[in-house]
Amino acid sequence: MTSSMGHDELELVDSWWRAANYLSVGQIYLRSNPLLREPLKAEHTKSRLLGHWGTTPGLNFVYAHLNRVIRRDSAEMLFVAGPGHGGPAVVANAWLEGTYSEIYGHVGNDADGMAELFRQFSYPGGIPSHAAPETPGSISEGGELGYSLAHAYGSVLDNPQLVTAVVIGDGEAETGPLAASWHSHNFLDPAADGAVLPILHLNGYKIANPTILARMPEEQLEQLLRGYGHEPYFVTVKDPDNTEQAHRDFAEALDRSLAGIRAIQESRRAPAAGTDGAADVDGAPRWPMIVLRSPKGWTGPRIVDGLPVEGTWRSHQVPLSEVRTNGEHLKQLEEWLQSYRPAELFDGDGRLRPDVAGAAPAGSLRMSATPHANGGLLRKALKLPAYRDHAVEVPEPGTDRVSPMITLGSWMRDVISLNMETFRLFGPDETASNRLQNVYEVTDKVWQYRIDDVDEHLARSGRVMEVLSEHLCQGWLEGYLLTGRHGVFSCYEAFIHIVDSMFNQHAKWLKVHRQLPWRQPVPSLNYLLSSHVWQQDHNGFSHQDPGFIDHAVNKKAEVIRVYLPADANTLLCVMAHCLASTDYVNIVVSGKQPSPTWLGPADAANHCRRGLGIWDFAGSEVPGEEPDVVMACAGDVPTVETVAAAELLKEGAPGLKVRVVNVVDLMRLQDESEHPHGLPARDFDGIFTADKPIIFAYHGYPALIHRLAYRRNNQDGLHVRGYKEEGTTTTPFDMAMLNGIDRFQLAIDAIDRVPGLAERHSSLRQSLQDRRMRAREHTRTHGEDPEEIRNWTLG
Amino acid sequence: MTSSMGHDELELVDSWWRAANYLSVGQIYLRSNPLLREPLKAEHTKSRLLGHWGTTPGLNFVYAHLNRVIRRDSAEMLFVAGPGHGGPAVVANAWLEGTYSEIYGHVGNDADGMAELFRQFSYPGGIPSHAAPETPGSISEGGELGYSLAHAYGSVLDNPQLVTAVVIGDGEAETGPLAASWHSHNFLDPAADGAVLPILHLNGYKIANPTILARMPEEQLEQLLRGYGHEPYFVTVKDPDNTEQAHRDFAEALDRSLAGIRAIQESRRAPAAGTDGAADVDGAPRWPMIVLRSPKGWTGPRIVDGLPVEGTWRSHQVPLSEVRTNGEHLKQLEEWLQSYRPAELFDGDGRLRPDVAGAAPAGSLRMSATPHANGGLLRKALKLPAYRDHAVEVPEPGTDRVSPMITLGSWMRDVISLNMETFRLFGPDETASNRLQNVYEVTDKVWQYRIDDVDEHLARSGRVMEVLSEHLCQGWLEGYLLTGRHGVFSCYEAFIHIVDSMFNQHAKWLKVHRQLPWRQPVPSLNYLLSSHVWQQDHNGFSHQDPGFIDHAVNKKAEVIRVYLPADANTLLCVMAHCLASTDYVNIVVSGKQPSPTWLGPADAANHCRRGLGIWDFAGSEVPGEEPDVVMACAGDVPTVETVAAAELLKEGAPGLKVRVVNVVDLMRLQDESEHPHGLPARDFDGIFTADKPIIFAYHGYPALIHRLAYRRNNQDGLHVRGYKEEGTTTTPFDMAMLNGIDRFQLAIDAIDRVPGLAERHSSLRQSLQDRRMRAREHTRTHGEDPEEIRNWTLG
Repeated sequence: MTSSMGHDELELVDSWWRAANYLSVGQIYLRSNPLLREPLKAEHTKSRLLGHWGTTPGLNFVYAHLNRVIRRDSAEMLFVAGPGHGGPAVVANAWLEGTYSEIYGHVGNDADGMAELFRQFSYPGGIPSHAAPETPGSISEGGELGYSLAHAYGSVLDNPQLVTAVVIGDGEAETGPLAASWHSHNFLDPAADGAVLPILHLNGYKIANPTILARMPEEQLEQLLRGYGHEPYFVTVKDPDNTEQAHRDFAEALDRSLAGIRAIQESRRAPAAGTDGAADVDGAPRWPMIVLRSPKGWTGPRIVDGLPVEGTWRSHQVPLSEVRTNGEHLKQLEEWLQSYRPAELFDGDGRLRPDVAGAAPAGSLRMSATPHANGGLLRKALKLPAYRDHAVEVPEPGTDRVSPMITLGSWMRDVISLNMETFRLFGPDETASNRLQNVYEVTDKVWQYRIDDVDEHLARSGRVMEVLSEHLCQGWLEGYLLTGRHGVFSCYEAFIHIVDSMFNQHAKWLKVHRQLPWRQPVPSLNYLLSSHVWQQDHNGFSHQDPGFIDHAVNKKAEVIRVYLPADANTLLCVMAHCLASTDYVNIVVSGKQPSPTWLGPADAANHCRRGLGIWDFAGSEVPGEEPDVVMACAGDVPTVETVAAAELLKEGAPGLKVRVVNVVDLMRLQDESEHPHGLPARDFDGIFTADKPIIFAYHGYPALIHRLAYRRNNQDGLHVRGYKEEGTTTTPFDMAMLNGIDRFQLAIDAIDRVPGLAERHSSLRQSLQDRRMRAREHTRTHGEDPEEIRNWTLG
Repeated sequence: MTSSMGHDELELVDSWWRAANYLSVGQIYLRSNPLLREPLKAEHTKSRLLGHWGTTPGLNFVYAHLNRVIRRDSAEMLFVAGPGHGGPAVVANAWLEGTYSEIYGHVGNDADGMAELFRQFSYPGGIPSHAAPETPGSISEGGELGYSLAHAYGSVLDNPQLVTAVVIGDGEAETGPLAASWHSHNFLDPAADGAVLPILHLNGYKIANPTILARMPEEQLEQLLRGYGHEPYFVTVKDPDNTEQAHRDFAEALDRSLAGIRAIQESRRAPAAGTDGAADVDGAPRWPMIVLRSPKGWTGPRIVDGLPVEGTWRSHQVPLSEVRTNGEHLKQLEEWLQSYRPAELFDGDGRLRPDVAGAAPAGSLRMSATPHANGGLLRKALKLPAYRDHAVEVPEPGTDRVSPMITLGSWMRDVISLNMETFRLFGPDETASNRLQNVYEVTDKVWQYRIDDVDEHLARSGRVMEVLSEHLCQGWLEGYLLTGRHGVFSCYEAFIHIVDSMFNQHAKWLKVHRQLPWRQPVPSLNYLLSSHVWQQDHNGFSHQDPGFIDHAVNKKAEVIRVYLPADANTLLCVMAHCLASTDYVNIVVSGKQPSPTWLGPADAANHCRRGLGIWDFAGSEVPGEEPDVVMACAGDVPTVETVAAAELLKEGAPGLKVRVVNVVDLMRLQDESEHPHGLPARDFDGIFTADKPIIFAYHGYPALIHRLAYRRNNQDGLHVRGYKEEGTTTTPFDMAMLNGIDRFQLAIDAIDRVPGLAERHSSLRQSLQDRRMRAREHTRTHGEDPEEIRNWTLG
C-alpha cells in the first residue's frame, strides 16, 4: 500500500504511540523516577510486577492512528479494546488526552500525576489491568473475553454518526460469542445506524499458546473474513523495526476502511447518489475491516536471557521479570523505556509537549471523553404509554383468562411507537413465540440479507433484533444501554443461563459504575423471561430451569431486582416500572399462555407498589384475628395453585382461617438490611405472622425463598414448594404435580402444618390425596388438553 | 454431480426415508389407526398437536444415506442430530432399525408398537421432542442448541475408526458455541483420532425467521466454510419433487466426503503412502463437509389454507394445525401420510417389510445401537497412580507451603502416562497458568496448524486440549465422556459460569440417564476450578465469582458433588476419588499459589474419607467438654484465616475452648435426607454442637452455607463469612479483609457471639480491630508482596 499520510503527520502519530507505550511500560514497572531523570535503579521499580505488556503496544498503535482521522474528519469515534489486559494502553491514552486528569484529580497531567498513574496500576486499592468502568472511554470490561464486537455493534445502533473501532484480540476471537458476533452486520441498518470498524489484532499468542486465527494460512483467514461478509485490509508488520512502514500501511488501511464505510452509508442514506464504492451483495454490504498482524510485545525487549521475547508468548505478561535482582534486566528495562525518547515527549514538569499533545482530538471528540462511553450523559427518559390504556378489566378475580405477554405486547408496541430511536427489543428468535407479536404492528425485525416474499415483519430497519444467539442479544443490548439507550431482552427462561457469565460482568460493571461520580446513570438491563419452567408442553426437561434468579441474587443487592407478576395487569405495572429505572438489572418472569386475571387496574398498581400483599378475595380470614395458615405464592402458576388450594381448604375445612399472600417483588422477602426493597421486620411479621405456618408456593427452586427469608422471625414456620428438577414433556398441571406444587399438595401441606388439623380433617386429607392421584392418572391417560385437566381438577 | 449409487440402492434408501418420514408424521399426529388401514378420521388424531416437523425430513434423509455407506463399508458411525426438535426423526430411525423395540419392550416392532410409538410422543409421561437420553443412539440433547459439533468432536477423539456424522441446523449455527466449534479440527489428530463429518443443513428458517447462513450469498457461504478450513460439498434440492436427483446428489457428496476423510487419515497414518487426496495446508488438512440445502418441512404439505408451507418457516412446528376440526386439513394429512406409500413399507402386522429392513446396518453398526452412544459399555476404569507417591510430607501443620495445583500436576502427569488413550485434560489456555505444567513432561497440547520453534509443548497429538473457549472445552469433554472416556476440565473459577447452561444440560442428561437401565454408567464430569476468587493479584473484580457451586447445587443431589480441599494432600485425595467415579458432576476448587500444608498423607486420606472433621491441632478444646465456639471453614483461603483466627483467640483469650472444623466435601453439610453425602443429624450436632456459635468462613457466597445447613438444629447459631462481591485488583489478604473473612474479623465474630466474651475481652477485641485497620493501611501503602503482608499480620 502507499501512504496517505504526510511525514509530519507520521511523526506526530509515532510520537503519540511512543508516549503511550512509555506510559504503559511505566505503569507495569515504575514506582518512582517516572521521567527517568536519574539513571534507573532497582528501587525505582515495583517490588511486584503485575500487568500484561503483550497486547498493549498494538492497542496504542491503533489508538494513535484513530486520533489522526478523528482530528482530520472531526469524526465521532468510540474505542472498544477487546484484548484482555488492555488496561495500561487505554489508561495511557486517556492520560495523554488529558481526560484522565480531568476525571481523577489526584492523577494530574504532570510528573507527580505520572508517578501516581504508574503507582496505582495493578496495586492494592488502585486500578485493574483490564479496561473497566473506572477507565475513561470504556464501555467494555476487558476481564472476560469475547464480547467486544457485540458491544461495538450495540453502541452504533441508532447512532448514525458514530463509528466504533473495536480491536479484537486473536485470543478472544476463539470464543463462541465473538465468533458469532461477526454476523452482527446483518442486523445493522447502514441508513439509520452508525458503523463498526473491526480491527482484528493478530499478535499471534494467548497466554501460552498460538492463536487459531494467527496460525491458519493467510489465504484461509481471508476466506473466513470474507465469509463473515467483510472486506478485509491486511496490515502485516514484517519488520518490527520499520515502524515507518507500519504507520504508512496502517494509515492507508484505515483511510480505505473509513472511505468504504462512508461509501456504504452514503449509498444507503441517499440512494440517488449511487452505490459508488459500496459492494452491495444481496442487500448486505461488505463492510471493511482491518487485520493488523504485529508482534506480541512489539517495541519491547527482543531477547531476554537469550530467549526470544518480542513476537512470542513470552511477552504476554512482564517481559523482564527480575528487574529488582538482575542487573541485566534492569539495564534492558532502562534501554526499553529510553527507546521511546521520553525527553522528546514530555517537558521538564512531566507534561506532554504541546506538539505531541496536538495529536489528540479536541474536547468530546477524544475517545476517552466521548459521551457515548458515558451513556448516562446522553440518556433520554423513555416516553412510556399510560398503563391504564392497556390494563385489562377484571370483573371478578380468577374468572377471565388473558395472556399476560400478549397484553404486554400491546403496551410494548406503544413503547416502541413513542421511542422510535431510543428503544429496542432483543431476543433469540422468540418474540412471537413469547407472544409479543403485537409489536409488529408498528415495527419490524432487522435483516440485511435477502428478504423473500414469504418472510413476515422482516425489513432493513426495525426495533426488533432477533438472532439465535443469547450471547449476541445480551452483548448488543449491553452496548446499547451503556451508550445511553433503552431495551428489553425477551428470552426463554431456561436459556437465559447461556448468558450467566455476561450478566455477571454487567452486574459487576454496574456496581462499580454506581460508585463513580463521573459516570451518569444508564438505563437498566431488563430481562423478560417467558416460556417458563411450568409451561413445557412442546419442549420438556431441557427447557426447565428457573435458576437464573438464584444466580442473579448473588450480585450486589443495590443492583438486582426480581419480579414475578401473577397476571396481565401486574406484568404491565412491573414492566413500566423497570423501563423507567436506571442502573439496575431487572428480572421479570411471566407466562405466555392465557391465565387467570386477579387484579383490576387500580388494585394491580397498588399491589405492585407494595411489592406483595394479602389477597382477601382468595383467603378466608376473620377480620381482627390472626390466620391459622398463610398460603403464600410468587409466580403465575404457583398463584393459580395457591388460590385453588385455599379454595379447597375453604370448602373442605370451613372455619379454617387461611390467608393468601401474593409476592410480586421477590426482594421484599429479604430483610431491609440486606436489600433496599427488603420489608421491615414488623411489616413482614404483620403479613406472614410471627409463628403461623407459611405454605409458600414459589416459581423456582425452593431454597431461594429460605435464603431470602432466613433472617425472618417465622423462618422456622416456612415451608416452601417449588421446582425440584422433576419434569418432562408434559402438561402444566402434570408439571405442578411432579414437583408437588399443585393445589392438592399445597392444601395437604396446610393441613399437615396447622396444629390439630390433620386429626380433625383426616377424611379431607384423604380425599385430597385421592383426587391428586386421580388427576395424575387422568393426565397420563387423557391429558392432552391442559385446560380440560385444570377445569377437571377444579371441579 | 453424477450418481455413485445404483437404482436398487436408490430405491432402498428412498424407501427407508419414506418409512422414517411416515413414522415421524405419525408421531406428531396419530393416536390410532397407525397403518391407515381405514380412512383417516378426526378421532384418529391427537387432540393436541405438539412437535416439530420442519427439520425432521432432512434428518431422516441424511440418516437413510448414512445407513447405505455403513452397510457398504461396515463403517463405525455415530449420528449427532443438532437441530432442535429432531426427536421424531431419531426415534423413527431407531424403531426402524429395531433398536427401539429391543430397548423399550412396550414399543414393539409391529402395529401395536407403532401405535404406542405414536402415542407416547410429546405426551404426558411420554418422550420429549428432542434427541435426549431416552433416545437410542443419542449423545447430544437437542433442547438447547449449539453444542452438536463440539459433542461430535469429543466423540471421535481417540476413536480412530469412528466417523461421527453431525447434522448442524442453520438455526443452531447462529449460536456462539457452534460458531466456535468449526475450528475444532485444529485439535484433531488425523492419525490417532477419528473423523467428524459436518452436514450443515440449510432448511432456511428458525422458528419465525430466516437463518443467516441460508440467506447469505452462496459464494460468501462457501468462503466462510473454506475459511473454517473445510472442503464443502454442496447439495441443493432445487426441485422438492425430484427426490431421485436429491438422492443421487447427496450420495455423491457423501461418497466424496468419506473418500476425502479416508485419504486424510491414510496419509497421516501411513505417511509413506503419500498424501493422495488430502489437501495438507500448513499441517492442517482440509476436512470435507456437506452443505444440504433442502426445503424446511420437505415432503410435507406444500400449501395450506392458500399459504405456502413446505420450504417456509410455517412448517417449523405442525403444518396442518386443525385436523380435528377442519376437514380439508384432515384430508391433506391423509394424503400426506399416504404419499409415503406405507403399504409398500409395512406389512399387514405393521412390521417393516424385509426388503426395506435390509437398508439397516447390522447389530452394533446400527447408529441407534452403537456402543459409542452408550459410552458406559466401552468405559474402562482409569488406572490411577498411587496417591501416596505424590502426597507431600507435613512435619507440622501450617508450616510448609506448597502449591496444591503443582502437586496435583505431578499426579495428573502420571494419570496421563497410565491412560494414554482414555484420558484428556481440557482447558482454556490455562493449564500452565493453573500450575498443572508438570503434565507436559509426558504429553503435549494438540495443534494441527503451523508449529513454530518458539512454541512449547505443542504437537500434532497430545493429551491436553487448550483453546480459548470454555464452550469448546465443555462440549468436547461431554462428547468424550458420553462415549466412555475420562477427563478433567481445568478452568479459572469465575469463567466457568460461561458454561452454566451447558452444565445444566449435562446434569439433566445424567439425571435421566441414571434412571434408564439400558444406559451404562459414564465417567463423571470433573471440574477443577483454580485461579479462584481470593487470588486476583493480576486480575481483579471481573475474575471474582465463586457462584458456580450455587448454580450447580440446584441440580439433582444424586448427581452433584462439591469439594473444597484445603491443601495439597487433600486436593490429591479428592481428585483421585473423582476420577474413579461415574455419573456425577464433581466440582473441585483449589488455589494454585503456595499455601500451607495442613494434613500429612494418612491424615488427609482420612479427612477426605470423612468429608469434614475437627482439627485438634488448630483448636483449643478441653477433652470431654463442649467447645465455646466452633470455627468452621471450607476452602483453602478460609482455612488459613480460620486457623489464624483460632490462634489469635488462643493467645488473646486463654481458656476459651475453640473448635476448628474443616469441611472438604461441602455436601456433608446437607441433611442426609437431602443429599446422599449428607451427615446424619446426630453426627452433625456432634461436630458443630447443637447450640454453640459457629463462625463459618466459606470460600464462596455465604448464603450457600445457610442453604445447605438450613435443616440443622444449630442453624440459628450459624454465622457465615464469605465473598460478598467486594474486590478489585489487590492482594489475597486485602481481598479477605474487603469481604470480612480475614483472621481478625473471624476472631472478632467469635468474641461477639460467645456469651459474655466481648465484655471479658473488650481490650482484645479492640486490639484486633486496630490490627485489622493497620493491616488494611499497610496493604494499601506497601502491600505489594502478599507473603510479606500475611507474615506481618501473623506476627
